[in-house]
Amino acid sequence: MPDRTRFTLDEKKMPTSWYNINPDLPAPLPPPLHPATDEPAGPEDLAPLFAMELIKQEVSMDRFIEIPEEVLTVYRTYRPSPLNRARQLEKSLGLPEGIKIFYKYEGVSPAGSHKPNTAIPQAFYNKAQGIGRIATETGAGQWGSAMAIACALYGMECTVYMVGISYDQKPYRRILMETYGAEVVSSPSTRTKAGRHVLDMDPESLGSLGIAISEAVEDTAMREDTHYCLGSVLNHVCLHQTIVGQEAIAQMEMAQAEPDVVIACIGGGSNFAGIAFPYYHRKLEGKSSARLVAVEPKACPTLTAGEYRYDLGDEAGMAPKVMMYTLGHDFVPAGIHAGGLRYHGDSPLVSLLVHEGEVEPIAVHQITCFDAAVAFARTEGILPAPESSHAIRTAIDEALAAQEAGEDRTILFNLSGHGHFDLAAYEAYNAGELVDYDFAAGSTMSEGGA
Amino acid sequence: MPDRTRFTLDEKKMPTSWYNINPDLPAPLPPPLHPATDEPAGPEDLAPLFAMELIKQEVSMDRFIEIPEEVLTVYRTYRPSPLNRARQLEKSLGLPEGIKIFYKYEGVSPAGSHKPNTAIPQAFYNKAQGIGRIATETGAGQWGSAMAIACALYGMECTVYMVGISYDQKPYRRILMETYGAEVVSSPSTRTKAGRHVLDMDPESLGSLGIAISEAVEDTAMREDTHYCLGSVLNHVCLHQTIVGQEAIAQMEMAQAEPDVVIACIGGGSNFAGIAFPYYHRKLEGKSSARLVAVEPKACPTLTAGEYRYDLGDEAGMAPKVMMYTLGHDFVPAGIHAGGLRYHGDSPLVSLLVHEGEVEPIAVHQITCFDAAVAFARTEGILPAPESSHAIRTAIDEALAAQEAGEDRTILFNLSGHGHFDLAAYEAYNAGELVDYDFAAGSTMSEGGA
Repeated sequence: MPDRTRFTLDEKKMPTSWYNINPDLPAPLPPPLHPATDEPAGPEDLAPLFAMELIKQEVSMDRFIEIPEEVLTVYRTYRPSPLNRARQLEKSLGLPEGIKIFYKYEGVSPAGSHKPNTAIPQAFYNKAQGIGRIATETGAGQWGSAMAIACALYGMECTVYMVGISYDQKPYRRILMETYGAEVVSSPSTRTKAGRHVLDMDPESLGSLGIAISEAVEDTAMREDTHYCLGSVLNHVCLHQTIVGQEAIAQMEMAQAEPDVVIACIGGGSNFAGIAFPYYHRKLEGKSSARLVAVEPKACPTLTAGEYRYDLGDEAGMAPKVMMYTLGHDFVPAGIHAGGLRYHGDSPLVSLLVHEGEVEPIAVHQITCFDAAVAFARTEGILPAPESSHAIRTAIDEALAAQEAGEDRTILFNLSGHGHFDLAAYEAYNAGELVDYDFAAGSTMSEGGA
Repeated sequence: MPDRTRFTLDEKKMPTSWYNINPDLPAPLPPPLHPATDEPAGPEDLAPLFAMELIKQEVSMDRFIEIPEEVLTVYRTYRPSPLNRARQLEKSLGLPEGIKIFYKYEGVSPAGSHKPNTAIPQAFYNKAQGIGRIATETGAGQWGSAMAIACALYGMECTVYMVGISYDQKPYRRILMETYGAEVVSSPSTRTKAGRHVLDMDPESLGSLGIAISEAVEDTAMREDTHYCLGSVLNHVCLHQTIVGQEAIAQMEMAQAEPDVVIACIGGGSNFAGIAFPYYHRKLEGKSSARLVAVEPKACPTLTAGEYRYDLGDEAGMAPKVMMYTLGHDFVPAGIHAGGLRYHGDSPLVSLLVHEGEVEPIAVHQITCFDAAVAFARTEGILPAPESSHAIRTAIDEALAAQEAGEDRTILFNLSGHGHFDLAAYEAYNAGELVDYDFAAGSTMSEGGA
């Protein structure tokens, strides 16, 4: 048998706790502030929105938090997820033996992305507290699908405010959510004050994650039986995703390989946190010296071009203010196809790590990401989500840079989802109709697609 | 830790040979006949269409055929596939502990179905023989996607004749194939004599697998550099799929469970063969007494309402005649959403086993299959392909029948693919717009969807 390609973790070795980075941060995390008073927001401020267990997780200083058995049971329907060495991609790039590319693959989940990893515990903790309905928002539809699935699994109602441009571009995501029993509303909508306000200003609004969050939070505030769930940004969301990186560590040990660089795309931050935080912990243990690289789109370059300051998490100021890199809560990103990366801010945890120099942010253009995605599809077989293609682009660039420098390098990236819902984007790419948007240049660049 | 849910097979335990049922058949398999002369077709008749290694496999009497290392390498990018116990579904049905439902899941492949299991070796053997281009047909798009992926992985050209109704209903499948570099042609097309003939008779033709096969075979006959690949029906295709059942046996051993019934949907037969043939072998070994159940749509009930006789595999008589259950090579099935099950005939191997009483065929309506699919999605998380939903319907019916009879029963079915490309079908179902077609009644029944 040749060298191995696929590192399969037995169900029995699936992690049974999440890794909480809070106690290991290089500096204290600035607290969230009440949006109206700018005073630190306490549990009582968050309680109308979130389940108490999630609020506790948000501020917990326990390094490991046990995953409830009811959550593990559902995780086991699709986890552990695979970790592969990208041998066919390596070969196509002509890499020497010393340069290795590995990827963790979250596209095997029922939503086709990493999002169920947090949707499931969020639904569970709310259900356990007697909450019968969840309101949430979604960008590309990945989060909304995950939440719809999680609510179906625990027998809860679910309303999803879907960013308008994705609602129009990705009808299949809407149908998917509806098939799981969720109600899907195009945002901005006339159903909330926040939505009506945006529509008054711009009836043609494409929507944004910020606006959709405002709508979901306002919906929650209106109803006693309803809580809000967020698909990224918050500490407890990052926490739940750490099952990904913990599995990856076990699988890389099976491969007898330590990554020199760990790469993930970043929108709100939870996908990046999922794979990178456990490696951050491993670095503290002295077992790793990996660089942690977060890849964002140049059309929405929060970490590389934003300011590190307190800002609102949503358009209308319903959600708490948090300390983070931000392009401004009223920034509406260009309509790139990686809808899940169109968020004006970023996870406070990841932002802190960037600010402290523990995480390297970089920004890339979408067309070059699609180039990488198609190269990956035609060698490794899997068609990536446009979001995930940002990580592939960077993994390939890391490999080529190592080759150029004549160095060995072991590269690990998180392939956060498949692109089976993103074929309209690939059609635009195939037809050479994609456009690159550059926040820094303040203008639209038009380069041809391949 | 509770009883296990997921039975993960290590890469090292992936089978390294396919199981060939030929030497174990209860009666000799009648040979294919040349369509023009009705004489047994020899290798020289098949050589213009197929790679020589595949022709040898078609008639081999070796019980196990080694999988080439170059194929295993690509299999390892997505295999072994998971086998799960459907605990959440069992719970929702209120089943007693003695009734257990397991499913093998092939939706984790890059095409989202079991089809790459044979597309990959077919591309490999052709490439090894110096063939640079493949022509093939596709129904729902699953086979075409698999072939497009396999050709991309081995650096070959690929032209796919796609059944017209699916070409129109499933544009995303077309884009997927194009993204892997394949050319996709709506069938019937004006590119071949066979296609033009059909269009002359009926310019509004929805197309069928039979017609598309004729077009792909004619395309192959026109070009020296081209071979033809078939996604089902033939012996070598069934052979390649047996990796599924062999993995399932190993995984069911991990679960310390022996199925009383093994269920799969059937169109051309390879998906059924994949899971059922290894269990047929296990029965011969005296280790299993499982019933083998093949589920087909009532709109195209080949095994339950067809005749067992020699018939053409395709519309125009380009492909050999084979002994099989058939509804007639000119039968065009109603436009059900399980496009992959719309074939007038069936695998000669499976047909023989049905004829000899070794396999139980049953036919079900599509709406009740969608009911089962949605029940499955809302409990197990995974949204099934409409084809696969036929197996779920039958698995649930088996469980309920056992409960009614007060018996224990262990049920295994093959979930051949996910439904992420079939959301238009689910939208029709959600809206109550699906219609049941009954071949036997000779008419359209209109029942409402849920």
